[in-house]
Amino acid sequence: MPSVNPPRGMRDFLPADKARRERVLAVIRQRYRAHGFDEIETPVMEDYGRLHAGIGGDNEKLAYNVLRRGLDADAIRAAAEDPAALTDLGLRYDLTVPLARFYASHRGELPGVFRSIQIAPVWRAERPQKGRYRQFMQCDIDIIGDGSARAEAELAVATLDTLDALGLEGGGIRINDRRLLDWMLEHFGFGADERPGVLITIDKLDKIGPDGVGAELRERGAAATAVDAFEAFLRRPQTLEFVPFGERQIRKALPEGAPDEVVAHLVGIGAAVAAARSHETEFGGVPLVFDPFLVRGMGYYTGTIFELSHPSVSYSLGGGGRYDGMIGRFLGQDVPAVGFSIGFERIVDLVEQGEDAAAEAVVVVHERDVPVAELAAHKARLVAAGGRVRLETRTKNLKALLERARADGYTAFATVAAGQTDLETKPLG
Amino acid sequence: MPSVNPPRGMRDFLPADKARRERVLAVIRQRYRAHGFDEIETPVMEDYGRLHAGIGGDNEKLAYNVLRRGLDADAIRAAAEDPAALTDLGLRYDLTVPLARFYASHRGELPGVFRSIQIAPVWRAERPQKGRYRQFMQCDIDIIGDGSARAEAELAVATLDTLDALGLEGGGIRINDRRLLDWMLEHFGFGADERPGVLITIDKLDKIGPDGVGAELRERGAAATAVDAFEAFLRRPQTLEFVPFGERQIRKALPEGAPDEVVAHLVGIGAAVAAARSHETEFGGVPLVFDPFLVRGMGYYTGTIFELSHPSVSYSLGGGGRYDGMIGRFLGQDVPAVGFSIGFERIVDLVEQGEDAAAEAVVVVHERDVPVAELAAHKARLVAAGGRVRLETRTKNLKALLERARADGYTAFATVAAGQTDLETKPLG
Repeated sequence: MPSVNPPRGMRDFLPADKARRERVLAVIRQRYRAHGFDEIETPVMEDYGRLHAGIGGDNEKLAYNVLRRGLDADAIRAAAEDPAALTDLGLRYDLTVPLARFYASHRGELPGVFRSIQIAPVWRAERPQKGRYRQFMQCDIDIIGDGSARAEAELAVATLDTLDALGLEGGGIRINDRRLLDWMLEHFGFGADERPGVLITIDKLDKIGPDGVGAELRERGAAATAVDAFEAFLRRPQTLEFVPFGERQIRKALPEGAPDEVVAHLVGIGAAVAAARSHETEFGGVPLVFDPFLVRGMGYYTGTIFELSHPSVSYSLGGGGRYDGMIGRFLGQDVPAVGFSIGFERIVDLVEQGEDAAAEAVVVVHERDVPVAELAAHKARLVAAGGRVRLETRTKNLKALLERARADGYTAFATVAAGQTDLETKPLG
Repeated sequence: MPSVNPPRGMRDFLPADKARRERVLAVIRQRYRAHGFDEIETPVMEDYGRLHAGIGGDNEKLAYNVLRRGLDADAIRAAAEDPAALTDLGLRYDLTVPLARFYASHRGELPGVFRSIQIAPVWRAERPQKGRYRQFMQCDIDIIGDGSARAEAELAVATLDTLDALGLEGGGIRINDRRLLDWMLEHFGFGADERPGVLITIDKLDKIGPDGVGAELRERGAAATAVDAFEAFLRRPQTLEFVPFGERQIRKALPEGAPDEVVAHLVGIGAAVAAARSHETEFGGVPLVFDPFLVRGMGYYTGTIFELSHPSVSYSLGGGGRYDGMIGRFLGQDVPAVGFSIGFERIVDLVEQGEDAAAEAVVVVHERDVPVAELAAHKARLVAAGGRVRLETRTKNLKALLERARADGYTAFATVAAGQTDLETKPLG
């Protein structure tokens, strides 16, 4: 008998887990809607060419490709020289490529500034390891058509509000701008061609510290004077602290001469988030801090980049950024865009179990000889009264049966014999 | 520039459609839960062998198969002789095969009688045609571990209650039992080997009438005496009317001598559904009628079969049946099982548009020079008051902007200039 497990790296969800996931998704959906975002949906598959156009970064290599239909033996043999001939569709590995395709297709039917919600699974053929799944949910919000700081502020506030609504108060967002990183590397004298490699090293600053960054950059063969200058800058104690917002603080955390326009954009975001929120957070009273060494992996970011954190965990709970160039790849015309993705799979593990606050859940334990019509009538009455009802045939071990029901979220029970017309429900437990 | 449309036969959902789909799904989920069903989830992919084990009927041929990863040119060439070597996973074409696999995997963690909800997409490479999609939602409820009429009654009542809750009162269910069909064909003298073909013809009775059935059976070369006897029986006027429930009516609609056990099972279901519901329906006061010529396509049905209808449409809105043999294919031990699938894609088109009854939805139209921090504060106040809020920069054509917002479900608006502290919201339209 073959295995009855789900495919490797993928998961079944039992009722308790599924109920919790749906509760969390309902909160996320409801909060994002309150903030003026509208949900859309795209098919799980996209044309192969769309998924492999160089936009998806490393994820393109992890895409599941769907076997082209109707291939005969000759076509298969011919495909040995051109494996892409075997496939015409693939499963999406993120929600950003499909969103760009969707927007290019439906722009005329959407508001001028389009605020989208996407809550949907994606697939990546990751090497199986703890906490990495090959199918997982993503929850993205994006704003297309607004290049101003209003967009970043709306995303940040909606995200933090959603975290609050999930009982995860105190979250905070680290923020930076790719243009500042570029400017900084130029300022220290790194050549344009070596900057992508330098960013990969800077991304490890948290883990390896200024010494490690300096050593790795030298190993990479980066320009020695640039590395020396940069390492000295990293060693200034204040630069490793995230700084709360305000132009003065941002400028102090950067080398002198940072571009005014970018700094002003960040200051605008900070002021807006502060105006909308005055909660205690990860970073004291400020929900947003400037981190001049925040990098974020994806190559398509062109401006602001974010990362969501929470005092209860050391890892990030989500992130995002501006990708003003990507829509143009589909539409033939650049449109500003910025998105924020919360890490649903990580967040769902942090949210308290919690029961449905809603209705009474009653398990009706009946003798084996109660006619089905009487059972149906009892159940209908309890359901009509707003309850949630499970019928159970009485077994010898009534206690075990009731404990099982309680574990499944039932809060009351009633016993019923044939011919009985009234039920008395008693609390369970 | 390549097409920006979704893959052929698949759909994008714009905000209004997506919101309606999510509203309908929320009602379905909520009603099924009230009836004691618990939602589960399985991965969209299953092992190729599972999907192609002969359980899925014609749908197996429509499965999308996923290209095996890491194939080199030699492996592809070799696969010309064995195309299954190209693929190890496939997208599910229904929710029944995954449920059977899930149950076999997790039986020990589930209640003795397990009532499952599955609300999830499936994929079939159908020939593109109007109303046929290659990705569509299925909403299934199943009861595993209960061979009694209680199971069918719970499915039928939960389904009709859900239809009511969607504003589609008056639905009805046609019911039959595969064992009665088998018995009836044997009774008329059809050989065991010709019965599957005969059932395919009977399934067309609605469309081609008794004459057509007789002619087609003769064309099939079915035993002449059997065809004559069956055609004569079909011509009895009362047999073409569905009959309300009760043993007398069921027996009258069948040839004499129908098996007692099966008739009693149907009578039990009928009495239970009548006890739970006394609504006006498709069939007068009765939500359930016996149709001795209802067939249902899937080969795995072993007992009761259902079909859901509604006075507003001529086509079926769902159906299901008993498949007591299937779980055994996965578990190595037979377990009774019965399921009902409502046709979500058909139902969602029938449900009234309807707005969120919930909160006020306010569009805030602001002058271009209002600082982002002021906008963020206005929005935060309205969201905190329970509203849904969209920010819009004022354009020359304010009227068009407000009409767009109203079309998107917004019910009020406010205008705001720089420095303004209070917002006055006015109804929209």
